[in-house]
Amino acid sequence: MFESAELGHAIDKAAYEQEIPGLREALLDAQYDLVASKAFPVILVIGGVDGAGKSATVAALNEWMDPRHIRTHGLSDPSDEELERPHMWRFWRQLPPKGRMGIFDGSWYTWPIVERAYGRIKEARLDQSLEQVRRFEQMLIDEGALVLKFWMHLSRDAQKKRLKKLEADPLTRWRVTDRDWKHFAMYDTFRAVAERALRSTSTAGAPWTVIEATDPRYQKLAVGRILLERLRARLDGPAPAPAPVAAPPVAAGLDGRNVLRSLDLTQRLPKESYERELETWQGRLNLLTRHKAFRDHSVILVFEGSDAAGKGGGIRRVTQALDLRLCEITPIAAPTEEERAQPYLWRFWRHVPRKGRFQIFDRSWYGRVLVERVEGFCAEADWMRAYGEINDFEDQLVRSGAILAKFWLAISPEEQLRRFQARQESRFKRFKITDEDWRNRDKWPAYEAAVCDMLDRTSTEIAPWTLVESEDKAFGRIKILRTLCARLEAVL
Amino acid sequence: MFESAELGHAIDKAAYEQEIPGLREALLDAQYDLVASKAFPVILVIGGVDGAGKSATVAALNEWMDPRHIRTHGLSDPSDEELERPHMWRFWRQLPPKGRMGIFDGSWYTWPIVERAYGRIKEARLDQSLEQVRRFEQMLIDEGALVLKFWMHLSRDAQKKRLKKLEADPLTRWRVTDRDWKHFAMYDTFRAVAERALRSTSTAGAPWTVIEATDPRYQKLAVGRILLERLRARLDGPAPAPAPVAAPPVAAGLDGRNVLRSLDLTQRLPKESYERELETWQGRLNLLTRHKAFRDHSVILVFEGSDAAGKGGGIRRVTQALDLRLCEITPIAAPTEEERAQPYLWRFWRHVPRKGRFQIFDRSWYGRVLVERVEGFCAEADWMRAYGEINDFEDQLVRSGAILAKFWLAISPEEQLRRFQARQESRFKRFKITDEDWRNRDKWPAYEAAVCDMLDRTSTEIAPWTLVESEDKAFGRIKILRTLCARLEAVL
Repeated sequence: MFESAELGHAIDKAAYEQEIPGLREALLDAQYDLVASKAFPVILVIGGVDGAGKSATVAALNEWMDPRHIRTHGLSDPSDEELERPHMWRFWRQLPPKGRMGIFDGSWYTWPIVERAYGRIKEARLDQSLEQVRRFEQMLIDEGALVLKFWMHLSRDAQKKRLKKLEADPLTRWRVTDRDWKHFAMYDTFRAVAERALRSTSTAGAPWTVIEATDPRYQKLAVGRILLERLRARLDGPAPAPAPVAAPPVAAGLDGRNVLRSLDLTQRLPKESYERELETWQGRLNLLTRHKAFRDHSVILVFEGSDAAGKGGGIRRVTQALDLRLCEITPIAAPTEEERAQPYLWRFWRHVPRKGRFQIFDRSWYGRVLVERVEGFCAEADWMRAYGEINDFEDQLVRSGAILAKFWLAISPEEQLRRFQARQESRFKRFKITDEDWRNRDKWPAYEAAVCDMLDRTSTEIAPWTLVESEDKAFGRIKILRTLCARLEAVL
Repeated sequence: MFESAELGHAIDKAAYEQEIPGLREALLDAQYDLVASKAFPVILVIGGVDGAGKSATVAALNEWMDPRHIRTHGLSDPSDEELERPHMWRFWRQLPPKGRMGIFDGSWYTWPIVERAYGRIKEARLDQSLEQVRRFEQMLIDEGALVLKFWMHLSRDAQKKRLKKLEADPLTRWRVTDRDWKHFAMYDTFRAVAERALRSTSTAGAPWTVIEATDPRYQKLAVGRILLERLRARLDGPAPAPAPVAAPPVAAGLDGRNVLRSLDLTQRLPKESYERELETWQGRLNLLTRHKAFRDHSVILVFEGSDAAGKGGGIRRVTQALDLRLCEITPIAAPTEEERAQPYLWRFWRHVPRKGRFQIFDRSWYGRVLVERVEGFCAEADWMRAYGEINDFEDQLVRSGAILAKFWLAISPEEQLRRFQARQESRFKRFKITDEDWRNRDKWPAYEAAVCDMLDRTSTEIAPWTLVESEDKAFGRIKILRTLCARLEAVL
């Protein structure tokens, strides 16, 4: 992969100086079109060997364009707020919004490459990490981002020369650290690991461009030209079409059976038992959250269900048992302007809790495959890919120590009607019923199909769905508490 | 202050149970009106002695209302991201947006009271902290927030009884810590400090309500009723009128002299000197940011100036000397939806940098007293109070270790006209000139008056303005770099 970047590519000074003014003007033009259009974000990943002029390239890009609309991110030690969340959280919080450019000098590639080169992770773990990176980038691309990745390459000799040169100049001596020489001694190892990383993450949507870094002029010009060309193409070309959907959604079984209809909604809990059980399970839950080991975990609860299925009541029975200072409830409504400028999952990532905390989502990221699918708010391709993106998201949550429980609260259409009518009559609950609720009721079959698909595609071993028979509220609430306690007990 | 909270206030069970359903319904109603109106945020501060049922009261509020629109905040140890910023940053990031309720169980009062009770700060420092709190709360009120503060009081005997009772019950034993008993032994000290704090922060807009906490029913009912009454009054009453402005803005001197007109705009720097000086000062700045002591500071730069005064060029000359990964430029444009739901300064607080970082504001919080004043985007009372709020904000930044430099870039109206015309002719810079720029030009005298007021009222010893004569761009840029280096050298 690096052969053509060891040919001694160079641009002479005169040619460089002749080209730069035009390139700069065109880049600035393109950047302003991007800012004005707010059409998509640009994500630049800059990787490469030590001393290969990464900072100088980043500086040139900031010089050529308007730096006020560019955000450059380095990779310093993670803060404790970052350490208490999935590894990728720190990158999610740095993603540029639509219309802006984010440059990652040090990125999601740094950890896997360095860890593997040092032999601290095995090859399988490296490949696993790279697969996660590939899926992350695919999500960015599907969400419309322009992702450009540059690898700054130096041959072994060239790197040695570069480090020596930097060391010789008193102005740049500080740039060369012991770590750089240590990595130089590991040149072949790093090269092999980097090659593996580049090879397996060079995709059609986000290919790597390896750039020879011996001549700074050549290097900067190459990056500038590619950026301009790709940016211009996206700005002037048609919006990328969503990928065609190959597999049709899982239809309801041909025999009319499905997992929702198979629920036994007649299950009931008499009032006396309910009150006793409520006290038992809430007490148990409270004790569990005061378990010492709980400090190393967070709890993320997802409540989904038909309108009037009892989400609010279920959540309340959980929070009654909790220290409210360690607990946040996020009701999911329409996204804000800042959220709309980011990939779909961004507005959930921003609520990923620290350790020792509860985060309760009243409706959630599953809106994509439920209401957005049924109401046609997004293309089929978008909600079809959401299943995989959601599974990846949840996988990261669970790997980072979060206990994730997802509840689908099920009621029959007849019970829903009864509750709607009761709500309209009760002054106390009138705010809970809107015209939209009545409209959604007419789409019951479409929602049922969407729910069944969702359960099939996202009920995984690490993040299973719990179906909660909620025809009887008491029964449903106790099932939620019982399930939650069991999940906590399994981990703590 | 605590006398009437030691009378043994109590409500019998029957009376309590009769009142609660109606109270709950009315609170829920009011909460939903608040959520729907998005008119103002509600901030509840719950303070008081240990064991005085603070959590139980918070739980009751969450029980009575819809907890999805309430956020309860405790006071755990600050994260490193919080420790690297002013003390109040952690509270600013938790402020509820308009339409929501934030409950602070542990608040900005905790630190001053505890530190003073332990004798770790002197009385003068306590009073200083309380004065800051008072100003912070006044800002919240002026921004429209409903601020309610409750102090849960127990007499010495009552507290002892309560702690013993909690310890006796196996279900609540965990709540009583050694720290609680230690604080009990310091009862009189805590009482005296708390009294001082309450007395000096009980203002007309945010009075404290001391509540006797011996009877939990009485306590909860008292809080619920007051919250309902105050919330209802704000929802149904007229929007609070801005305070009348007593002092007129500083007019331009009667003799037509002002600080801007007194600048010597003829100062120039020849090209050869400019290039030499640029290299010198950029090199010096770069060295300074690599100084070990820099890791304990952050740098916050504010660039203000007339249109076309050279803010972008000035910023660029600074960033050229910096590690771009440690530097963020925030151009200030119209606030986003999330920002509009918060107090004015919130959108700047969210960009307060960590230590070791540069944050550059291209236009800033001074918009309030410049464009918003001149264009009439806010009431006179709002921009008049902004001077004090800004000084408080900057004081907190500087106290936390930030190096704050504020640049006003000054040009003559004639030079502005020349630059506007040149921009219109240059394809390269055409994006820099809009119709609005031409309109603003007509308001030159109004802007000049606003700038002079701003300089008079916000150029303080800890955060002085630097007036940059920018008629000659070279001269202005070097003055910026020189000033910045001097500021860093004074601190490092």
